[in-house]
Amino acid sequence: MSGSGEFDLIARYFTRPARRSPLGVGDDCALLAPAAGMQLAVSSDMLVEGRHFLSTVDPARLGHKALAVNLSDLAACGAQPLAFTLALSLPAVDEAWLAGFSRGLFALADAHGCELVGGDTTRGPLNLCITVFGEVPAGAALLRSGARVGDDVWASGTLGDARLALEVFRGTLALPADLFDVARSRMEQPTPRVALGLALRGIATAAVDLSDGLVGDLGHILKASGVGAQIDADAAAQLLATGDSAGLDIALRRACALAGGDDYELAFTAPQSARAAVEEAGRASATPVTRIGAIEAAAGLRLVDARGAAVTQRFASFDHFA
Amino acid sequence: MSGSGEFDLIARYFTRPARRSPLGVGDDCALLAPAAGMQLAVSSDMLVEGRHFLSTVDPARLGHKALAVNLSDLAACGAQPLAFTLALSLPAVDEAWLAGFSRGLFALADAHGCELVGGDTTRGPLNLCITVFGEVPAGAALLRSGARVGDDVWASGTLGDARLALEVFRGTLALPADLFDVARSRMEQPTPRVALGLALRGIATAAVDLSDGLVGDLGHILKASGVGAQIDADAAAQLLATGDSAGLDIALRRACALAGGDDYELAFTAPQSARAAVEEAGRASATPVTRIGAIEAAAGLRLVDARGAAVTQRFASFDHFA
Repeated sequence: MSGSGEFDLIARYFTRPARRSPLGVGDDCALLAPAAGMQLAVSSDMLVEGRHFLSTVDPARLGHKALAVNLSDLAACGAQPLAFTLALSLPAVDEAWLAGFSRGLFALADAHGCELVGGDTTRGPLNLCITVFGEVPAGAALLRSGARVGDDVWASGTLGDARLALEVFRGTLALPADLFDVARSRMEQPTPRVALGLALRGIATAAVDLSDGLVGDLGHILKASGVGAQIDADAAAQLLATGDSAGLDIALRRACALAGGDDYELAFTAPQSARAAVEEAGRASATPVTRIGAIEAAAGLRLVDARGAAVTQRFASFDHFA
Repeated sequence: MSGSGEFDLIARYFTRPARRSPLGVGDDCALLAPAAGMQLAVSSDMLVEGRHFLSTVDPARLGHKALAVNLSDLAACGAQPLAFTLALSLPAVDEAWLAGFSRGLFALADAHGCELVGGDTTRGPLNLCITVFGEVPAGAALLRSGARVGDDVWASGTLGDARLALEVFRGTLALPADLFDVARSRMEQPTPRVALGLALRGIATAAVDLSDGLVGDLGHILKASGVGAQIDADAAAQLLATGDSAGLDIALRRACALAGGDDYELAFTAPQSARAAVEEAGRASATPVTRIGAIEAAAGLRLVDARGAAVTQRFASFDHFA
């Protein structure tokens, strides 16, 4: 589905020579040829203006983020990125926007060796839909269903800063300029944890990518694995990149870290016997990893503070239909 | 990217047990395992309300069409449908709409053994993005680049009726009720020519799916193959399912057949020596096939009438940015 003006547009900003794929942009289909013994991991995410990004965002940062949230799903499966398709609905042809968007998109794509192989462009309210493809040896994918009682619960990187930045944009709180820059960068340019996901193959028992917040997304692991968990809310609250230097109270920091959303970190489980291996996977992938809890037999998620006392604060998962 | 309310919604209407895929809806990624020696054909199409469908369309017909336009891309490659992902942006949770949409979607998916393996749901202006996956033996895909001088040009099925129906909706022309029903069905429930595409493997030299109209889409074959073509505009105008019984003048019928758009038929080329084989592929797939022209060395597309005289009428390809 591509008309002539539209086709020129795609050609200008999105067509590059096919590399590994037998056939890339410009035919009815792209062709992918997974290596022998490999499965193809596939994920689609759709980003809508006003819901997943602000209309004022730098288009290069948006190009980065649109692909990053998809690569984060591959990371959670332990898959090596291969290729992606991009479907774009645009209110108008804005060349400056397209140039910036494609620059940010391809910078991240090239960093991960992930090739644009096809897509669609149409006029309509701004909407970005990327489908990403990765490769994983048959049987080696990290799933949500493998957590076992006694496993540690880990989180990668930093949590909660994207939500802090969103609240600053919404005007509900203020941050010093330097901390706002840190938080805004986490919101607008999340780092997909692809290298960590690959390093955790054979070590982690379950993994999930954190898009809606730790409480909600870890819940998917608990449900799929038929287990419960205890999480140290204060250990999670320590994971804000902006730390406690903004002087925010602990309840707000816990809320952002546990249910802020838009983190694109990994939460994963691994046996206690694998602690050294997890730490080594973190070092090898240059990704901080922090132990924040444990898998338990009783269903549900129990939050405790640093002294082990129950935290009664309630957290809802970020819901795109809320 | 799925919150709790949203997740319930997906579970209710779009989760079904995984069949052939090792892992379907409900993890960070779906896993696909193409058979040995097979390449994976991939295509993404995005449908936007008001541009690709009317807000008043029956949701079951829309579910059919959203998948049909993607299956049509697989058909043009000669690929066997395997699986698809669905990303949906919805202005609100409307259960009657979801029930109808998913019914139409799965009826067509089941008819082609094509499994929903993942996706995303969010709130926003109505937008449907499907990415479809098919299997084709390595080297056997029909491409746009294989047309050779002297090849016949063929079209499948019927052309131009979707545009007639659109013009009735726009109020620019009137049709008798029975003919409008025929045209409207072609607009709202196109038939992806998957069986024909499979039957043309090893016979057709090039193929393209007709979404923007014959003139524009055949142009992709001509450009990719470095050739030109002569097309019998009157033979094409004969391909309206509504025929000439609506009393429409020949110029309008030519325009709809050649550049109406939204046909989801195949245009393809094959050597003259393969005429019997093409006819047999049409019979085997229960799909009408009509010879409408020939590939020539001189670049460009020349239209002639039934007597071979040049047709000077100009046709623009349907352009989603027009």
